[in-house]
Amino acid sequence: MTKTIVVLGAGAMGSAMCTPLTQAGWETRLWGTWLDDHLIDACEAGQPHPRTNVPLAVGTKMYRSGQLDEALDGADAVILSVASQGVPKVTEMALQGISKSKVLLLTSKGFCPDDDGKIQLLPDAIRRIAAANSVELPPIVAVAGPCKANEVADGKPTATIYGSLDRSVAEQMAKQISTDAYCIQPTDDEIGVEVCAPMKNVYAIALGLADGLEAGTGFPHHNLKAATFAQAVREMSELSKALGADPVTAYGLAGVGDLEVTGLSGRNKVYGLRIGRGEPAVEALEAMIAAEQTVEGVPAAGLAKLLVEQFGQGLAASLPLLAAVQRVIAGEENPKEIVQAAVLPAKLI
Amino acid sequence: MTKTIVVLGAGAMGSAMCTPLTQAGWETRLWGTWLDDHLIDACEAGQPHPRTNVPLAVGTKMYRSGQLDEALDGADAVILSVASQGVPKVTEMALQGISKSKVLLLTSKGFCPDDDGKIQLLPDAIRRIAAANSVELPPIVAVAGPCKANEVADGKPTATIYGSLDRSVAEQMAKQISTDAYCIQPTDDEIGVEVCAPMKNVYAIALGLADGLEAGTGFPHHNLKAATFAQAVREMSELSKALGADPVTAYGLAGVGDLEVTGLSGRNKVYGLRIGRGEPAVEALEAMIAAEQTVEGVPAAGLAKLLVEQFGQGLAASLPLLAAVQRVIAGEENPKEIVQAAVLPAKLI
Repeated sequence: MTKTIVVLGAGAMGSAMCTPLTQAGWETRLWGTWLDDHLIDACEAGQPHPRTNVPLAVGTKMYRSGQLDEALDGADAVILSVASQGVPKVTEMALQGISKSKVLLLTSKGFCPDDDGKIQLLPDAIRRIAAANSVELPPIVAVAGPCKANEVADGKPTATIYGSLDRSVAEQMAKQISTDAYCIQPTDDEIGVEVCAPMKNVYAIALGLADGLEAGTGFPHHNLKAATFAQAVREMSELSKALGADPVTAYGLAGVGDLEVTGLSGRNKVYGLRIGRGEPAVEALEAMIAAEQTVEGVPAAGLAKLLVEQFGQGLAASLPLLAAVQRVIAGEENPKEIVQAAVLPAKLI
Repeated sequence: MTKTIVVLGAGAMGSAMCTPLTQAGWETRLWGTWLDDHLIDACEAGQPHPRTNVPLAVGTKMYRSGQLDEALDGADAVILSVASQGVPKVTEMALQGISKSKVLLLTSKGFCPDDDGKIQLLPDAIRRIAAANSVELPPIVAVAGPCKANEVADGKPTATIYGSLDRSVAEQMAKQISTDAYCIQPTDDEIGVEVCAPMKNVYAIALGLADGLEAGTGFPHHNLKAATFAQAVREMSELSKALGADPVTAYGLAGVGDLEVTGLSGRNKVYGLRIGRGEPAVEALEAMIAAEQTVEGVPAAGLAKLLVEQFGQGLAASLPLLAAVQRVIAGEENPKEIVQAAVLPAKLI
């Protein structure tokens, strides 16, 4: 029997997911938030999706923001694919429908402060919201790894990782959603998957700084970029471990793979490159915002700082590259600061 | 008291090492092999080194191929920096001098077949040669990690890894050679360091294939490149483990870091790119050879195949990307083969 899945959020990743989902045989519904009307308009008009430049997968049913209940009606699975700031609100709006489904997948990524300012990973934030509303949730599956939305939408080869506290749930979804092009690795390390996803945006800024030093001086800084990459992976592993994850998760698709794809292109890297080239951090960010280029790594770096502080000095000391990126973003340090943070730890291990 | 170090091999890496060595206070001697006369000529004439385009570090003493005994006389340390095929011959030539020194460092990298065709890592090959000549060796330190020679020569920030079976020897050399720019991580995992160095050249070909698919089709294959990167790292770790190394070494500077720098540029990547773009493998290699561009990953892939066969089917099955690269090099498969090898393992983990 055909199963039904609802994608909440019609942005780049939400719309892209419709490609493997329809190919894998799901009845696929795409719900756009109140911010997504123009995206749904374009798709309904048969145009490519404005964020991925790829037409929406044939057979996808589209729903407007006012049609949330209709979209969720009878859904076997729900995928939450909104920007991380929108997660609490959309979760609350969709809570009844989610509770009736058998699984909640999550492509949204980020750190979410609770009412007391404590930083939570998104699955925990969703569980907190559900508990506050006395609603029971189905199992959560965190979806991450090196997935540029336009390539997923276009059916290009992609390897991704699905993490659920109950490994059998991750395995089941991996079987039911994998296609020849979209290959899913299941894991029980929900935490590791969730930590790496926002952190790779922070560390992509550091990779951009190395590129910017090259662009600004005319001299390659490949050794620096590679040292930065290795230190970033090490720090993602350290932070994951502190939060209870398997330290090895950061060494796979969720960390190494996702940092590689983020460092190849993307806004975080471009922002870092501008600073590395010599632009003051504040001006670089203003220019990106003026061009409607959200730099996710900037708020993530601030929230990561608060998160690390929840664990005390020992953890902070093992994350010198994170601290250096935070100082560079704050305009407190010359981007060359990154050099010491990337290569010096070699001496200290 | 000033210590004396002799670098054997005046190519790119040998000459580059003179920069941190002189900065760290060593009396540094650079010996050129019978193939290096024109390189020594250029350096003596005050020109930039032809391979790095950077002048030799001031204070370096140069020796011609006929002056090997003179170069080795009274040396506290020796660094072997010749092409891997030259290691057996230069080792034999320098054996007496090496045996009198306190440590042998090794920037040469590769797999070395013994007389029976059994594949050995270079330190073991050197030990075999010494034993056959009844000569006792000092401790060996394997030098690896993301070090482009031109950047090392130019004093650009670099993090590297020194592995010795006796960790205290690696630590001592790290202390005595590290500078502000050239930072050394010591480890006791000689095997892990030695396995990753040639393997990263093989896997850089795979990264090039992904770039070539993009260049050939006009569509980015960033997800594929990232999946390939993650799978390459996983396979370097598996192969290292089978050889007795710490599987984590591949996740640091020796694996992740070195693959990153090799994938940024370099001949192995360019060779893969040409094939990915549609050139037959044989023609791509011929064109590289005609341009005097040695593609180290090609012989390394063949030797790696023999090495893996020494361990039986179980290991081979865990290295599907390596097998795919070997088939692509042999012209037995379309480069798209790499796609299945890079993304499919996600489903199988």
